[in-house]
Amino acid sequence: MFIGVDHVGVAVKNLNEAISIYQNVLGFRLEGIHVLSERGVKVAFLSSGGETKIELLEPLGSNSPIAKFLINRGEGIHHIAVKVKDIDGVLEDFKRKGVILVDEKPRIGAEGAKIAFVHPKSTKGVLLELIMK
Amino acid sequence: MFIGVDHVGVAVKNLNEAISIYQNVLGFRLEGIHVLSERGVKVAFLSSGGETKIELLEPLGSNSPIAKFLINRGEGIHHIAVKVKDIDGVLEDFKRKGVILVDEKPRIGAEGAKIAFVHPKSTKGVLLELIMK
Repeated sequence: MFIGVDHVGVAVKNLNEAISIYQNVLGFRLEGIHVLSERGVKVAFLSSGGETKIELLEPLGSNSPIAKFLINRGEGIHHIAVKVKDIDGVLEDFKRKGVILVDEKPRIGAEGAKIAFVHPKSTKGVLLELIMK
Repeated sequence: MFIGVDHVGVAVKNLNEAISIYQNVLGFRLEGIHVLSERGVKVAFLSSGGETKIELLEPLGSNSPIAKFLINRGEGIHHIAVKVKDIDGVLEDFKRKGVILVDEKPRIGAEGAKIAFVHPKSTKGVLLELIMK
């Protein structure tokens, strides 16, 4: 069903400051920056040296889901994104099993990937992203 | 410096219940269960189909750091563990750069791995585990 963890998302207040720390202090390698207006976020992907990346997310405006997360929880880990081969099939399977979905249908994420979020109520508090590239 | 993400840790109240959901509903594959008395946790590793695993952590008793996390934050993502080749070298480098460490020296984690935690104050809120296998 899953073919690995694509990335782990981290909510931050200031993307440039966070990139500087993750790159220059901690030693991750910056791969790219994307503005995802429709999702209300500016994101940076950093390589961990393996198949799973770190995604830093800064909110674009106070209506961004990341802005709300920062108010409620502060900066920190926001979600886990698992790679799937057939996102529609997984969503169908989850619906059949009564899993609560944030997105009933896939939408378009960074770099044109199809993505959908699973609600933390069905995953022991984990915001789980399904991603098909 | 880093050679991938080894696992993402998720704090849960009841390990058996969480394993059942992650395995039977979400479709992760259970790889093993370990009791780490000295760390105050019982953990289960689940395969994501790639190099990065999901580690579910249940506290052993109310003094466990995971018990405190559950009271403060509830169930959810607890830490990210990145693989390193030379944990002593990374800790030295971090100390030199002023990174706040939870563990100044490595200690022994699941399956005999050397591990050390970096404080969330130095990582934009992320509890970062270094792991050398």
